[in-house]
Parts: sequence; C-alpha cells; structure tokens
Amino acid sequence: MKESIGPRTIGFPTPVFIVGSYDDEGNPNIMNAAAAGMCCFVPPCIYVSLREATYTYHNILKRKAFTVSIPPEKYVVEADYFGLVSGKKADKFEVSGLTPVKSELVDAPYVNEFPVILECKLKETVNLGSHTMFIGEVLDLIADKEVLIDITSKSGKNLRRIDPEKFLPIIFDMSTRNYYKLGEKIGDGFSDGSRLLKK
Amino acid sequence: MKESIGPRTIGFPTPVFIVGSYDDEGNPNIMNAAAAGMCCFVPPCIYVSLREATYTYHNILKRKAFTVSIPPEKYVVEADYFGLVSGKKADKFEVSGLTPVKSELVDAPYVNEFPVILECKLKETVNLGSHTMFIGEVLDLIADKEVLIDITSKSGKNLRRIDPEKFLPIIFDMSTRNYYKLGEKIGDGFSDGSRLLKK
Repeated sequence: MKESIGPRTIGFPTPVFIVGSYDDEGNPNIMNAAAAGMCCFVPPCIYVSLREATYTYHNILKRKAFTVSIPPEKYVVEADYFGLVSGKKADKFEVSGLTPVKSELVDAPYVNEFPVILECKLKETVNLGSHTMFIGEVLDLIADKEVLIDITSKSGKNLRRIDPEKFLPIIFDMSTRNYYKLGEKIGDGFSDGSRLLKK
Repeated sequence: MKESIGPRTIGFPTPVFIVGSYDDEGNPNIMNAAAAGMCCFVPPCIYVSLREATYTYHNILKRKAFTVSIPPEKYVVEADYFGLVSGKKADKFEVSGLTPVKSELVDAPYVNEFPVILECKLKETVNLGSHTMFIGEVLDLIADKEVLIDITSKSGKNLRRIDPEKFLPIIFDMSTRNYYKLGEKIGDGFSDGSRLLKK
C-alpha cells in the first residue's frame, strides 16, 4: 500500500544545469536550474524551466539564446550559490571567480571552468504556470578533452563521448535538497534487459 | 580550449522514468524514457518525450493520462528491458513478472514493485521533431513507506519526503549508455552556496 505525498513535482535524479545568458547591457549572468533536461533527439533539444521573476527569463527572451554549463562535483558550492541570488543583484561570475566565455555559435556566455557546455538557440517557450519551459536547440556540445573518451559502436564506428566517470557530474535531489556524487556503474543500457527478451 | 562533439542532446544525470499507460483493449503497458523530468512547480508538472513509433505515444493521446514509476537500482535489468521492446509485441508486465496496478486518480497503470509513482493527467503535448513532449500534471505522488522520512523545515513544519538514500534510484548516462548508482552526499542545496553570499 503506497502512501500519498500529495501533488508534487519530483524526479530522481535531477541535474544541475547552469544557464548562461546576457542582459541588456551585455553583462554575463548564470543561474542554477534543476527543472531541466533532454527533450528531443532530432533536432537535439534541451530545456530549462524558469520563473518569470528570474533575470535569465528576460535575458533569454531578448537574446533568443542560452547556454548550459554542467558543473563537476568540485564546484558544488558555486553551483548552489548560482541558485541563491539573482543576477539583478549580484555579478555571479565576479563573486564566484569563474570565467565567462562568449559562445561562438549563440549570443550567450558559458562557464569556462565547467567541462561540459551546451550551446542553444531558443526554439520554443511553453508557459505552464509558475514556470515557463525554454526549449533550446543544441547547436553544439563542447567539452574539455580531460572528460572525453573514444568508444567503439556496435557497427565499428569510433565515437567521441563524455565519460561520466571522468566528468563527475553533480546529482541534485529535489526531495531532500541534497547534492550527491555519481556512484558506481551497475549496468549497460540497451543491453542488460536483453536477458529478458529470451523469455 | 573545448572540443566540439557536434549537436547532441545530453544531460548529466539522466533519470529512468518508466511510463505506464493502457492500450485500446485496456492492457497495461510500460516503457523506459530517459528524456524526462520536472518542468513546473505550480501546478506540479513532469514530462516524458516519446517517439510517435512507440505504443505509449498513442495510448497517452487516447487516455489523456499516464503514470511514471521510478525503479530502484535492484530493478536495473527490468528497467532496461522496458526500453528494448515495444508493447505492440510483448506483454512487458508478464515477461518481467512485475505487477500492474490501476491508478486511483488517472486512467493508467503503475508498477507496484517500484517505490515511487507519479500519477499524471495529460496537460499538453509539444511536438519538437523526432520526439513529442507529453507534459503531465501530477495529481499525486505516492511512495512506499520504506523510502519515506520526516524532515523538519526551517519554519518548523514536518515534511514527509522521499529519501534517495533509502530509495536508491538508478542514474542513466546517455553518453556512454551506462547505468550508475547514486553516490555519497556532497552538499546541502539552497545552503552551501551561502558561503559566497558574504563576499
């Protein structure tokens, strides 16, 4: 018998997406979005859900672009800070000591110290209530060499991929509001389940 | 200098959302969706992104409802299997030995053995290309007592919450297609970053 917790948005696990945008004066801003993720493969799209009260909301609407910089675990304090204060009140790049870099493809800055970056042009907005989804088409995924590996596909092709065990992303838990590390590998996707196919 | 990996949808971490729906004959079906997550807080909404080729896509359009059952790590093989075969071709509940239960609130089944369930009525669909987002309003979040804890809010209120350390959710990595465990706690959200506020 399951217990009712009431209507709540929840997800296990939840990412830490640091959203980069420029304001009217061209100042770079960043914020922390936990309601965020992948939403389409062709074209490749991701989204971030934002409240209208955020500085980033208006920046993205004006510039039609944003980036997502994904922090590794050693930047958990900075990542949390980016969600605590508005870009209207603080220069979060200056306070954190991190470095804004202008994307070569879209009109938005990213965090140079973070190893994985998605460069997005705004494709669509969907207003759902307290939050509006900003759906971005990913024009490029760029990453530091240190987090990349080469893997061979089943058809023998060489694939350049991000290795989460080198990258060490942060996992957020919306329920208890704690941050976690990635744990050990427990399975192979699109593979382990084939044991049941023979049944 | 960052290296270009090309336009790709990616997210670290990615959840394992098992989507439950009924077909025309009332048969329960489940599938694995990795492009899924939270997207609004008021009203509480989550989404799953699905290809039109899936059985679930048409089931949700007809019934205007779905559930999300989130598996703990011991069900990684079953969870992977749910993404390998279509409900058109197999009774995935029967093959996996898991138990469908009809939601009391929406016209969709969930997986009884999984400890965390979101019961959703379809709120909106957004076609983005290869995938369509099915945005559901969460009418209730239900969970097994074994994964719940009581925590005290800053204002002294008792809050019933899911403890990820009891629940042990699976983390999927879209980049290498591996499954991971949740690792150890490394920080307190909406808290650790306040160290930088004083700067």
